[in-house]
Amino acid sequence: MSTPDLLLSRRDLDFLLYDWLDAEGLTRRKRFAAHSRETFDGILDLCAEIAAERFAPHNRKADLNEPRFVDGRVEMIADVKDALDAVAQADLLSAAMDEEVGGAQLPQVVQTAAFLWFQAANIGSWAYAFLTVANANLLLAHGSQEQIDTFVRPMLEGRFHGTMCLSEPQAGSSLADITTRAEPRPDGTYRLFGNKMWISAGEHELGENIVHLVLAKIPGGPAGVKGISLFVVPKFLVNADGSLGERNDVVLAGLNHKMGYRGTTNTLLNFGEGVHTPGGEPGAVGYLVGEPHRGLSYMFHMMNEARVGVGAGATALGYTGYLKSLDYARTRTQGRLPGAKDPASPPVPIIEHADVRRMLLAQKSYVEGALGLILLCGKLLDEERTAESPEERARLNLLLEVLTPIAKSWPSQWCLAANDLAIQIHGGYGYTREFDVEQHYRDNRLNPIHEGTHGIQALDLLGRKVAMADGAGLAALEALLRGGIDQGRATGGEAAELAEALDAALTRLVAVTRAIHSADVSPAVRLANASLYLEAAGHIVVAWIWLEQFVATGSRDDDFHRGKRQAARYFFRYELPRTGPQLDLLEKLDTTTYDAEPGWF
Amino acid sequence: MSTPDLLLSRRDLDFLLYDWLDAEGLTRRKRFAAHSRETFDGILDLCAEIAAERFAPHNRKADLNEPRFVDGRVEMIADVKDALDAVAQADLLSAAMDEEVGGAQLPQVVQTAAFLWFQAANIGSWAYAFLTVANANLLLAHGSQEQIDTFVRPMLEGRFHGTMCLSEPQAGSSLADITTRAEPRPDGTYRLFGNKMWISAGEHELGENIVHLVLAKIPGGPAGVKGISLFVVPKFLVNADGSLGERNDVVLAGLNHKMGYRGTTNTLLNFGEGVHTPGGEPGAVGYLVGEPHRGLSYMFHMMNEARVGVGAGATALGYTGYLKSLDYARTRTQGRLPGAKDPASPPVPIIEHADVRRMLLAQKSYVEGALGLILLCGKLLDEERTAESPEERARLNLLLEVLTPIAKSWPSQWCLAANDLAIQIHGGYGYTREFDVEQHYRDNRLNPIHEGTHGIQALDLLGRKVAMADGAGLAALEALLRGGIDQGRATGGEAAELAEALDAALTRLVAVTRAIHSADVSPAVRLANASLYLEAAGHIVVAWIWLEQFVATGSRDDDFHRGKRQAARYFFRYELPRTGPQLDLLEKLDTTTYDAEPGWF
Repeated sequence: MSTPDLLLSRRDLDFLLYDWLDAEGLTRRKRFAAHSRETFDGILDLCAEIAAERFAPHNRKADLNEPRFVDGRVEMIADVKDALDAVAQADLLSAAMDEEVGGAQLPQVVQTAAFLWFQAANIGSWAYAFLTVANANLLLAHGSQEQIDTFVRPMLEGRFHGTMCLSEPQAGSSLADITTRAEPRPDGTYRLFGNKMWISAGEHELGENIVHLVLAKIPGGPAGVKGISLFVVPKFLVNADGSLGERNDVVLAGLNHKMGYRGTTNTLLNFGEGVHTPGGEPGAVGYLVGEPHRGLSYMFHMMNEARVGVGAGATALGYTGYLKSLDYARTRTQGRLPGAKDPASPPVPIIEHADVRRMLLAQKSYVEGALGLILLCGKLLDEERTAESPEERARLNLLLEVLTPIAKSWPSQWCLAANDLAIQIHGGYGYTREFDVEQHYRDNRLNPIHEGTHGIQALDLLGRKVAMADGAGLAALEALLRGGIDQGRATGGEAAELAEALDAALTRLVAVTRAIHSADVSPAVRLANASLYLEAAGHIVVAWIWLEQFVATGSRDDDFHRGKRQAARYFFRYELPRTGPQLDLLEKLDTTTYDAEPGWF
Repeated sequence: MSTPDLLLSRRDLDFLLYDWLDAEGLTRRKRFAAHSRETFDGILDLCAEIAAERFAPHNRKADLNEPRFVDGRVEMIADVKDALDAVAQADLLSAAMDEEVGGAQLPQVVQTAAFLWFQAANIGSWAYAFLTVANANLLLAHGSQEQIDTFVRPMLEGRFHGTMCLSEPQAGSSLADITTRAEPRPDGTYRLFGNKMWISAGEHELGENIVHLVLAKIPGGPAGVKGISLFVVPKFLVNADGSLGERNDVVLAGLNHKMGYRGTTNTLLNFGEGVHTPGGEPGAVGYLVGEPHRGLSYMFHMMNEARVGVGAGATALGYTGYLKSLDYARTRTQGRLPGAKDPASPPVPIIEHADVRRMLLAQKSYVEGALGLILLCGKLLDEERTAESPEERARLNLLLEVLTPIAKSWPSQWCLAANDLAIQIHGGYGYTREFDVEQHYRDNRLNPIHEGTHGIQALDLLGRKVAMADGAGLAALEALLRGGIDQGRATGGEAAELAEALDAALTRLVAVTRAIHSADVSPAVRLANASLYLEAAGHIVVAWIWLEQFVATGSRDDDFHRGKRQAARYFFRYELPRTGPQLDLLEKLDTTTYDAEPGWF
């Protein structure tokens, strides 16, 4: 299973990037002027190749041989480092970053597409690079020049790796309750004390050093999230000349053993428990990033990137599972069609069975819809970054804020559902570890949990994002979708029919949103069905993406474009109607679940 | 996790068995006259105790230490045999069987409830007993007295174990294509040659012998399913005095390594490949069960039992996951309620969050609805078995035929969804192997696949069952549900409102079914959306079960009965409306998925 053809569809990437999103048009912007379709394609080809050759071959091996905690060290299979080194050596980690830090200023949309190959091939190994890039981006945005020189450059060279340390054992989703404290020292540094839970890539020996970005509270600061600051806490202190210094007091307390994503170490880390005493003093040495008490806003800069990245990972896993089940359905023969009475007739490939096609078409609509959503977010980020006016930048920023919880959660829900269907198409074989799809399912199951659970995304969307700037968030989303509806109407024919259906659903979503926010009820009641809202909004946004894809097929009538149109039809006929009952409940401000008292269970 | 309280709710079993299904009333029937509520309760208590003490403690251990194929033998942890021996020693295997074979003539509905404890505690270990009982029941129904004496009695004593050998590597769902052949010998025995795939419990050393029930074709018989015969093929031949004789030529070719259900060996078996030559001749010795070429109908006798049993297993896994996530939600504190602005206020138990209650209430509605469905099937079987007239027996048989694909597939789909929600409530902890819920999910994922996939059940329901006897199958189901609707109306108030909603959905289902069967389209088009039909029919049947439970709460107003009513409300408000869009598509005989050509993917 190490051919790129079973990881992602390059044909589909080309369609979405060039026929739909006009990624090539970005090269007219100054930031991307050195690029062309050729450089984009070169990166896509390179990543596909490295993914197929270095990442995919050890995907199952990493699952079967998860990292082990031996004598205080983490042992893992050597293939992981080989794969990550290949990425660093190809200068891919900094691809989208500024030239001044050695980046190639590749558009985000192209980088997102390119990195999907790694996510599809081996999400567990790729996680180390994913976190390093996110960490570097955060420091580039909010760190000092010294922090950038000391920590970011070695990360981009692949010598250091990065983590994000937010959660604690008693505080998963609730960052207000973190208790890790950072005590200031006269020299301007801090000493950290506390425990961090669920830290991916928290300990390993893939490089020389690990750069932890840690949320902690400076004593005396405000309570809750307003008192959270952000610190760089390296595993090894770094001397002025860049060489490694003393071991810092960040110590692995244990590994979490997971259902999937097993190649990624997931750790409990102790800070400042006295195992090491750098400089002869207690505590883990930390360096404040930016201003005190602003840590959460910095982290959310990275968090939005990470959340879309989670959606991208979910999409990639869904996509490769879809392709593998498609391959299986085309080659596996079994049974006969209804009405074929002759038992001596040969069995048919299972793709001939309507129910198998249903499962394939559902997967196609989920994974290609999710891919469109993820790439769109990349494109919007490129447009925001190169916007010509502050107003345009603000509009794009708002749109991305509204789309982020959907881009995180919709693929996490529906590409997981795609993986479930991929198992089902494989039948008993899909339930065995001899085939890939069961691992994809297990790996993907993390995505509705980490970087903010499904429920947290729902509260974010309904409680904050659509209400932002006096409803401007919702208005920006509506305007985006109305553009597609207008275009569908102008195209006419079947596109106009889809546009009408989308118009009806969108009009209802907007009305329901306003009704919820203007209702004279408690915040708890208003948000009681936030998850339903998230799901309905997600399906409506993805219906729009399918309308856009339908229109983008133009008059082309080959198999690829017919398939795109059929998947769009499927989404409008089988998926979009699911939002009806959800919006009914939201409209009523139904409190059935909210009213269920704890004692009644 | 080895207290019965986290496996199943005895309170709920009592409610369903006694308040709803009037299991006690069965004791007025001759077959069950030796029983009373006391004997029923005694069995339930005993099974709960053995399940908690002998099965639950090694559930995770069996998952982490799956059976291994070493030097042609299967090695597994000793706990499995200890647990199974405890069941046999308590004479539980024959509990529902006739007195003449040593059974206790316990009603099936009580046995189903009692065995749920084992399924909830450790489905992988219980599978050995489950298969043995199913095997024994089949031989009791269709085997000769000699076969019963030779094979069934030792199985019921726990000395022999049983399997079902249907699938082959090239023929999973399509039994017409099996190629294992059974060649007759002059002494009336047969010699079998072929390979069987996915054989659970196909090899192990839990007892003295393994009794395989094998589907094979006698050369010269009809093609397809009409040429399938059933054979007993023991691992060791049995001498006339009951002692073990020669090793038969049934040989383990390999173990399948699964996503879950890891404690159950799942095997590829070779028959007659010449590893052993019993009696100096090639082939595995087999004994014909019943008449030649009638094997499939005999197997379906067992298959219906096994399918409801799969639904029961899915229900049990869903139920224990629900209870564990409920326990977690009551004890884990995290975050504050919307509107609670003071970050210094203490975090609340997560059950206080509306979205967590939504996930709990959804689980409750799935697992308690599924439990009702499974117990109902047991009760109907008891009524069928003791019916006073052939007409009544035929009606009950028809009803069970229609309910079987739903009882197999609905719990497999929705109790799996419950396990998914149980993981989600646990957050990151639920994704680790330190908690039980991820294993329950993995174990449960088998259920939509084995004993006839979801798609096969769908074809069975729409293509055969509801059309049976000129529509009498559908009519029997409708009559059952209309009884509940009438009762709901007679109860009045909220029950009457639920009854109206169910009436509308049922009326529509019946009309859609008739429209599908009378449409002038090909069988392939008629069945193209069979899976949607199965899902819509399942939700409507379970809505009826919730209406029945609502009515059965009467005027009792304690927490337990309030919870029941709230779960019924949830099901009617959040779940039943899902059937609307499904019935829309079925009504239109939508062909979107059917029309998708293989080349379009």
